[in-house]
Amino acid sequence: MGKFVVIGERLSTTAPIINKAFTERDPEPVLKRAEQQLKAGATYLDVNIGPAESDGEDLMKWAVTLLQSHFDNVPLALDTANKKAIEAGISVYNRAKGKPIVNSADAAGRIEYLDLAAANDAICIALCNGEGIAKDNDERMMYCQTLLERGMEHGMEAEDIWFDPLFLVVKGMQDKQMQILECIKMFSDMGLNSTGGLSNNSNGMPKAIRPIMDSALVAMAMMQGLTSAIVNPNDLRLMETIKSCDVFKGNTLYADSYLEI
Amino acid sequence: MGKFVVIGERLSTTAPIINKAFTERDPEPVLKRAEQQLKAGATYLDVNIGPAESDGEDLMKWAVTLLQSHFDNVPLALDTANKKAIEAGISVYNRAKGKPIVNSADAAGRIEYLDLAAANDAICIALCNGEGIAKDNDERMMYCQTLLERGMEHGMEAEDIWFDPLFLVVKGMQDKQMQILECIKMFSDMGLNSTGGLSNNSNGMPKAIRPIMDSALVAMAMMQGLTSAIVNPNDLRLMETIKSCDVFKGNTLYADSYLEI
Repeated sequence: MGKFVVIGERLSTTAPIINKAFTERDPEPVLKRAEQQLKAGATYLDVNIGPAESDGEDLMKWAVTLLQSHFDNVPLALDTANKKAIEAGISVYNRAKGKPIVNSADAAGRIEYLDLAAANDAICIALCNGEGIAKDNDERMMYCQTLLERGMEHGMEAEDIWFDPLFLVVKGMQDKQMQILECIKMFSDMGLNSTGGLSNNSNGMPKAIRPIMDSALVAMAMMQGLTSAIVNPNDLRLMETIKSCDVFKGNTLYADSYLEI
Repeated sequence: MGKFVVIGERLSTTAPIINKAFTERDPEPVLKRAEQQLKAGATYLDVNIGPAESDGEDLMKWAVTLLQSHFDNVPLALDTANKKAIEAGISVYNRAKGKPIVNSADAAGRIEYLDLAAANDAICIALCNGEGIAKDNDERMMYCQTLLERGMEHGMEAEDIWFDPLFLVVKGMQDKQMQILECIKMFSDMGLNSTGGLSNNSNGMPKAIRPIMDSALVAMAMMQGLTSAIVNPNDLRLMETIKSCDVFKGNTLYADSYLEI
């Protein structure tokens, strides 16, 4: 079993400083956040350029080239509703440190993202969701099957489809939390990789509480077999927890210095 | 499903200050530590008087009476190799807030602790261990079965036997950690309660690391169905994690103030 894969979520247009830097093609804020995330232990960096309808292709190429030239071909997740921008990003992407991740397909309007990933030998995050939130794990697993078949029909290896159960917010959907965790176990029992925006669980909670909830959930999810998450690697408590769970799972060997690695 | 049961471990002869207070029947250090643990969220307090060969009966009676009279009949785990001292403790124990816990039986030389618990309508911690450390979960589950049958033959309810997988130290037995976690799942799948000295996993690690490892492990173990642990409730990170996992499991309702409750 491999180490848990942390996909750093902080290069996103939802952050005003990054949105501005993307618009102005200003390298400095982007490189700064990228470095912070890599130093903290991120393996992949998510590059979320938003809908990027007008200049998405140019922007994604700029971001991919900028990040990979500064950080030794750091592997990236290309995250946008603009499919052409993802293709443009892949066209300049260097695979030396890992395949690009297409973020993301779902089982409804975005199922063609799988085809795109297949055509470009990329990893694809596959959200087990149709229209609206799945009502139970039967529905989630139906979407999982649909996505798995679609990817494999197009020539993908199952291991390159990373299934996302869609983490749900505790405030309002507390009674669904165990369902999501059971869903991860189902993925794992099928030998599938998994990922997701785990910190969604703590949306709307006081700021001091979020790392506590996120850490508890990531440990529970790793126990269930979660293999990756799209998270803030600069959340120290979260990263400590991930590294510790990797020790318990035998993914890394324990040494007193394990938190510094 | 009920809330996770925290058994506070800090009233123990292994702590020199408590050892001295027990010997001298000095209430103040005992009451102080008891109060710290209860304020931090302990449900039960473990009273570990060691082998207590000479005056165990008198000492256990003193400790039980002292603690229950000061803290509204706080429920206690009576922890000693001296069986008569446990019986003496139970003879003065008030059950208003919960049955006494006998700590502990095993499947070898201490199996009669189950008979003692049965005869006194007590809960019993049942260590799934024979002579030496069990080599795998087949062996652990064989002991589990032996202990379960013994308790039930003597009239105990299964829910009053709290099975302990024996948490093992990571430094030296890292490769056994997942086995222990799988064992907890087996207990849980059988509908059994479970507990154990969870912080044993981090024995020998640097002091700053222990709460990090312990917290990660308790979350993984709670995911597997662990229902209790014998821990230090004054480890803030650990207690925050336990309370958060109780939220994810639906054992407590989320409120922004959940950590203060």
